Amino acid sequence: MAVNDIAALGARAMAHVEAIARHTDVAGQITRLYLSPAHRRAAETVRALMEQAGMAAFIDAAGSVQGRYEGADPSAPSVMIGSHIDSVVDAGRYDGVLGVVAGLVVVEELARAGRRLPCAVEVVAFGDEENVRFPTNLSTAYALSGAYDPRWLEGTDRDGVRLADALADFGGDAAAISKLARSRGSVRAYLEAHIEQGPVLEAEGLPLGVVSAIAGITRARVALRGEAGHAGTVPMPMRRDALAAAAEMIALVERIGSRREDTVATIGVCEVSPGAVNVIAGGVNLTLDARSPDDAVRRAMVAEIRTVMDAIAARRGVGLTWQTTMESPATPMAPEVADAFAASVEDLGLPARRLLSGAGHDAVAMARLAPVGMLFVRCKGGISHNPAESITAEDAGYCVRAMIEAVTRLAGA
Amino acid sequence: MAVNDIAALGARAMAHVEAIARHTDVAGQITRLYLSPAHRRAAETVRALMEQAGMAAFIDAAGSVQGRYEGADPSAPSVMIGSHIDSVVDAGRYDGVLGVVAGLVVVEELARAGRRLPCAVEVVAFGDEENVRFPTNLSTAYALSGAYDPRWLEGTDRDGVRLADALADFGGDAAAISKLARSRGSVRAYLEAHIEQGPVLEAEGLPLGVVSAIAGITRARVALRGEAGHAGTVPMPMRRDALAAAAEMIALVERIGSRREDTVATIGVCEVSPGAVNVIAGGVNLTLDARSPDDAVRRAMVAEIRTVMDAIAARRGVGLTWQTTMESPATPMAPEVADAFAASVEDLGLPARRLLSGAGHDAVAMARLAPVGMLFVRCKGGISHNPAESITAEDAGYCVRAMIEAVTRLAGA
Repeated sequence: MAVNDIAALGARAMAHVEAIARHTDVAGQITRLYLSPAHRRAAETVRALMEQAGMAAFIDAAGSVQGRYEGADPSAPSVMIGSHIDSVVDAGRYDGVLGVVAGLVVVEELARAGRRLPCAVEVVAFGDEENVRFPTNLSTAYALSGAYDPRWLEGTDRDGVRLADALADFGGDAAAISKLARSRGSVRAYLEAHIEQGPVLEAEGLPLGVVSAIAGITRARVALRGEAGHAGTVPMPMRRDALAAAAEMIALVERIGSRREDTVATIGVCEVSPGAVNVIAGGVNLTLDARSPDDAVRRAMVAEIRTVMDAIAARRGVGLTWQTTMESPATPMAPEVADAFAASVEDLGLPARRLLSGAGHDAVAMARLAPVGMLFVRCKGGISHNPAESITAEDAGYCVRAMIEAVTRLAGA
Repeated sequence: MAVNDIAALGARAMAHVEAIARHTDVAGQITRLYLSPAHRRAAETVRALMEQAGMAAFIDAAGSVQGRYEGADPSAPSVMIGSHIDSVVDAGRYDGVLGVVAGLVVVEELARAGRRLPCAVEVVAFGDEENVRFPTNLSTAYALSGAYDPRWLEGTDRDGVRLADALADFGGDAAAISKLARSRGSVRAYLEAHIEQGPVLEAEGLPLGVVSAIAGITRARVALRGEAGHAGTVPMPMRRDALAAAAEMIALVERIGSRREDTVATIGVCEVSPGAVNVIAGGVNLTLDARSPDDAVRRAMVAEIRTVMDAIAARRGVGLTWQTTMESPATPMAPEVADAFAASVEDLGLPARRLLSGAGHDAVAMARLAPVGMLFVRCKGGISHNPAESITAEDAGYCVRAMIEAVTRLAGA
């Protein structure tokens, strides 16, 4: 495989990324929330690109774009490549879009070579991965994998617009969503390329990584109730300082989260009341976010954190209430898909670095339907959900090349 | 001394407190900021009470109420009793007011007995102790002690009203403030009773305490700059978590502040950015408030805190900027005044518990002019600056009784 090939594939992928990045609901940003006008225009752009690549394509009842490049045996289970084209507010251009574009360029390459694989290659551009606008959870991918929750249709955005009404305006069809569900066995593998959203590949000088699992997540709110007081007049031994208690807890969460390579634990919110220079903190609200690819490890970690927090609170005479706000199990990647990615990466002369996905992806929902695998692409500074999101054209080329190889392997060609 | 005496003195003091508490700028609260209409009405009430007690009284150029109960020798240096009648927003009834009322009842008692002391007894109700409305610092007390800063007159409140204009509306006279300064030697002692604003006396079951010193204060803002990141995708060893750094610092500030009995150190503000459950903290702003009656101890404590914070930040790759925002030296009480209070408390059959004042008071400004001393009164839960501020009538009675004895001693009677 020539270097020219990588450069050409990368340039093509980057051009498609730009074509989608033009669609935004907020000028000067990339903001493309699920079912917005910009999402509709982006979906039409993707459909047109799919058709130009030689696929049969349509925008489905839930707002996803589906394209199919037929295989030698139309009845054989397909290989599906997907990711999403919705974005967070003031997003970067690559999160989600790169995975859709990778699928597009794979089919372009197959079509250019006049090549049919033994089975169809499908490409899907999901519309609701960021779960920013409505209180949903990967709804468009669950529509395909058969676990769409109809209550999601009643959810409203911050302007009070129901998802069902936004979907009708978009041109979707709430009543037809249930028919989107694919039957088990109809998809032999789901493949998703995505920017890493973390710093590991960059730190190790690697363009690509093979995801071993998507971490499970526990989130909790922890409210501490101490006693506010005058910072000058309450002697140290008589204090019940909620922030001093929180500080001990934050330090221990960091220590517990750092004990294993396959865990992270984060306190991202620390709100102090009353929060004045001369007042001892009476109350503190913390959030916990704890992740691991191993559910038993995560549950044990969270249990330990909770035990330690309770002990600190009790010792200090500080009240503690714990509310678990999210409990999401881990999604292991299917070994055959991960191995296909690994072999394809090694064919490029690169080491097949296995790594954990700490963030959730459409693959979590698709794992219900088919064996899933993910390919991570190095991104600058590990930054995502930010206009500064950045990858190189060369890395995009490596990504597409590895995806072509993996699809070919999994199609049994 | 009979128990009846204490009860009667306490009841009288509490009635005067109520008379002043009626004056508020916000219905349903006690809010009486310097130079407000409620402050004016409260000052007039105090002047009337002074006159009823047999004093010559007036509201001075800076808005303080001054009353004089003449002594046997009008040229002898006076004993002065004072505190303040301004309040914070949504205040309690006792902070400041109790000290003024104690002075009033002392004179009522002397007058009722037809008794003149060798020197005059003065009572002063200062107007600007809380320093809430204008960017001043004990301005009305400094007017008497001769350190009024004329730049204070140019300071504005949150509505943009200049202190000079508010003073004119109140009926004061900016140009005459400099003439309020008393000459050194004209006041033989300044005595101030005040609620403790802390929990020590309540915890020890004591109505009264004798202040040994008013603590010096250092305040600083500390800004930490780490690196924000995705809580799921940045491995623990690659993080520069500003909140984890802050947590270590908060724990160490508590430990360093607790090492001696005569120090306190408080982190009351901890603002996290961006402050989201799934984002590693990129920045944290902390405040430090560190106090001690011994300036050398305070300076050493703050230097140690700063060294430790720098070391934590450096080890974690987190940027730190430190800005000292207040540096206020300690005010030791004059031994002869503290001893007079102690002897008077012991005459009541109570132990003379010496304790530190962590909060600032008018006595800080008056120490420039005269030997000062303070008497602390037990308050419920150590609560102040809050409608829940509470003392018992009996404790108010003990306060007045001890004040009478101390004034008599210091007047040389």
